[in-house]
Amino acid sequence: MPAPRVVVLLSGGMDSTVLLAHERALGRETIALNICYGQRHVREIDAAAKVAEFYNAEYHFVNLPPEIWEGSSSSQILRNEVAVPHGHYADESMKTTVVPNRNMMLLSVAAAVAISKKCQFVGYAAHAGDHAIYPDCRSSFILPMQEALRQCDWSPIELEAPFVASTKADIVRLGHELRAPFELTYSCYEGRRLHCGKCGTCTERKEAFELANVADPTKYET
Amino acid sequence: MPAPRVVVLLSGGMDSTVLLAHERALGRETIALNICYGQRHVREIDAAAKVAEFYNAEYHFVNLPPEIWEGSSSSQILRNEVAVPHGHYADESMKTTVVPNRNMMLLSVAAAVAISKKCQFVGYAAHAGDHAIYPDCRSSFILPMQEALRQCDWSPIELEAPFVASTKADIVRLGHELRAPFELTYSCYEGRRLHCGKCGTCTERKEAFELANVADPTKYET
Repeated sequence: MPAPRVVVLLSGGMDSTVLLAHERALGRETIALNICYGQRHVREIDAAAKVAEFYNAEYHFVNLPPEIWEGSSSSQILRNEVAVPHGHYADESMKTTVVPNRNMMLLSVAAAVAISKKCQFVGYAAHAGDHAIYPDCRSSFILPMQEALRQCDWSPIELEAPFVASTKADIVRLGHELRAPFELTYSCYEGRRLHCGKCGTCTERKEAFELANVADPTKYET
Repeated sequence: MPAPRVVVLLSGGMDSTVLLAHERALGRETIALNICYGQRHVREIDAAAKVAEFYNAEYHFVNLPPEIWEGSSSSQILRNEVAVPHGHYADESMKTTVVPNRNMMLLSVAAAVAISKKCQFVGYAAHAGDHAIYPDCRSSFILPMQEALRQCDWSPIELEAPFVASTKADIVRLGHELRAPFELTYSCYEGRRLHCGKCGTCTERKEAFELANVADPTKYET
């Protein structure tokens, strides 16, 4: 019997890298799907490609047009008209960074790729820490999307979101067990060569390694 | 109180044009959203722009990248590597024209535009005649998508699909009552100036006007 096939939404950050490690541990053939939606820097895209290469996974890149988000506050940030807010990831100020309906877009593209490339699964690394500011990371959003993916083609596509109840520290612990290449991942909002160590995602990243009691291989500027 | 706002998915065909007429009759401010997903000809896009102009609706165009559908049989048709099958719209042979997960993609973009442009509704002209070959026109697909749109942002977006139980003839009758500009619409697979009169969608179009007992203003080659 051929191995089951999965499309993993791979951002280049830690969570989706651990998900790819997890899917590989399950013995699945993996397609690493990296979707760009107008991010300002290419570090994340590079990181996703390196992680896919590390796992010898098929890499597929899709660049979504910025017209989709015209008029939103996130599109002003993406065009550098407004600064990225600093501070903790879950702060109220971070709401301006939310890309409207981002996750439905990502899941739709992933399902289209899954059908086109004959995969039975889509893997999605939403986790509990995201819920505070992202409405589309809540299980009330993920559950109907799971049903929609089962119905969007004649054969069902199973949407797996195994981290939906996990904290970022839980994910770091699992990644450590699976020897995921954390050093290849990138999650800083600033987009410079090293992680800034101060923005929302850097703060969250540091905290997760500390809470998990795992050595953090990230090189920070500060 | 300001008028409710709706994003209407406008393909340039008859169904979505009648939906736009219907939304206008309800007194809503309408944004006509035309999404290109690698169609081979621009007639449909022109038609959508003309219909939006007729209704003095804001027109928004999004061009999705063909990488999303790489490897599917529809992408071979779009690249002219395989011919468009002739015959009735609901024939088995037409299944090769199905763009994988097309409707979830369209609805995701529509919801992103709705959030970015502060609309409460998304209008979608799926109808009963589509079910035979398109899995993503079935109500078992549309119902979970309705719930997902309610959950994808902090304020719910209501997905309206008022034609889901209607035939194409029903839609022609409604459009006739609402004086929808059928003469501006385009639905031929061939993409020449006049409708070919022979392809799947032309066959379906003719049939709908006959069954509705409404004069067909379409200029056919044959």
